[in-house]
Amino acid sequence: MQPKLTLVGAGPGDPDLISLKGIRALADADVVLYDALVAPSLLDFAPVKSIKVFVGKRSGKHHMSQQTINELIVSYALSHGHVVRLKGGDPFIFGRGQEEIEYARNFRVSTAVVPGISSATALPGLQGIPLTHRHINQSFWVMTATTSGGELARDLRKAMETNATLVILMGMKKLPQICSTFFEMGQSDLPVAVIQNGSMPNEKTVTGCMHNICDKVAENGLGTPAIIVIGEVVRLHQAFREEMVEKKVSNYKFTA
Amino acid sequence: MQPKLTLVGAGPGDPDLISLKGIRALADADVVLYDALVAPSLLDFAPVKSIKVFVGKRSGKHHMSQQTINELIVSYALSHGHVVRLKGGDPFIFGRGQEEIEYARNFRVSTAVVPGISSATALPGLQGIPLTHRHINQSFWVMTATTSGGELARDLRKAMETNATLVILMGMKKLPQICSTFFEMGQSDLPVAVIQNGSMPNEKTVTGCMHNICDKVAENGLGTPAIIVIGEVVRLHQAFREEMVEKKVSNYKFTA
Repeated sequence: MQPKLTLVGAGPGDPDLISLKGIRALADADVVLYDALVAPSLLDFAPVKSIKVFVGKRSGKHHMSQQTINELIVSYALSHGHVVRLKGGDPFIFGRGQEEIEYARNFRVSTAVVPGISSATALPGLQGIPLTHRHINQSFWVMTATTSGGELARDLRKAMETNATLVILMGMKKLPQICSTFFEMGQSDLPVAVIQNGSMPNEKTVTGCMHNICDKVAENGLGTPAIIVIGEVVRLHQAFREEMVEKKVSNYKFTA
Repeated sequence: MQPKLTLVGAGPGDPDLISLKGIRALADADVVLYDALVAPSLLDFAPVKSIKVFVGKRSGKHHMSQQTINELIVSYALSHGHVVRLKGGDPFIFGRGQEEIEYARNFRVSTAVVPGISSATALPGLQGIPLTHRHINQSFWVMTATTSGGELARDLRKAMETNATLVILMGMKKLPQICSTFFEMGQSDLPVAVIQNGSMPNEKTVTGCMHNICDKVAENGLGTPAIIVIGEVVRLHQAFREEMVEKKVSNYKFTA
């Protein structure tokens, strides 16, 4: 028996967005340790006799520490063989994949990685918002809203000086603060999209501008897990086009 | 017959990194239009009787204009039904996916999107370089090296003022210019990784710092297609660890 850890990115939510390589890793698993954001149907790719352990966070409830997860990985690898660690999105994008890999290597557990489709890159496109568009911008910037100390990330102010599309993960609680920061910088008309449960049947998307997105999010009852997309490319979303058509129609009616 | 376009991201190179959803789209294709960076074996997922058309760029040779590709999509969709447009990486990350979607919609061709694993997010992790690490940084920034006018992107200088990990796509020709820009800003020791043909059997990776990466890239004969990763997280790459161990050993020898 060879102790082995394979980190697999499950993708942004839709179980069909896992890679073929991810499915093959699951089919070879002796143990699967999976997160809260992983579709339960993905576990069906693992052998019936394999052990499946939920190690994710459930809001309001006690959850496992990273240290406990690290120890579980090593302990199962040594006792059962191939551990697949199934994580939402991509394991290395705010996923602490590196920490799990390093811990496992310290115990001579061999490691492999299967990247996943990140919510940050996939969900805007699925909503008709390209992260880059050659006539609009040349880059996109993915960040968390807060530092580990809980303050609004310093990068956010830097980002305002560029035309990068911003994708903010785990930022819903800070949305009012994000909006007021942009507002203060004179960017109240900058478009914003909030995408909750992206790529899933219960997906909800709200678009607006810095001055009204918080109200719209509240009206439509959006919450976590969600990503926030900021930048001129958001104007390519269908809702903005419809708004423009509506404006033209109402202007026409007014003048007619 | 329903004219339809599905944009499918093929992933960073390894054909097993395509998603299950992408395979299903291919299996339903009447026509596949594919790029140069797509693994030929992916075409086997499409029906034998489907038409496969190469529309990519081959260096040094004449290639189709975007307008020609747009027209081919519409023309095949109207004459044959389901066109799958198979693109390397993710269709919306510098992929002009949006332009193809918009063109098709103008002709009442229905459209769908299957995101792909982007080289920008997957290849660093596969090399043991996490784009984010909670003790090092809170963001990553993906950009092209040049503007559409061919100048070095303005965002590059902005990026130097942050601790974002930088991922530069299509930047190999500008590498000397990128390095000298960082050098001038006093960041000659900033670590850099260059990954060519990432996730493929012919993958080549070189790591170094701003002051020596160009020499190392030349020595090892790296060329396109490649991505450039810049930032302190690059120090987590195996090569840097080995270098540190070597230094410790040689210091020990020196003092002994």
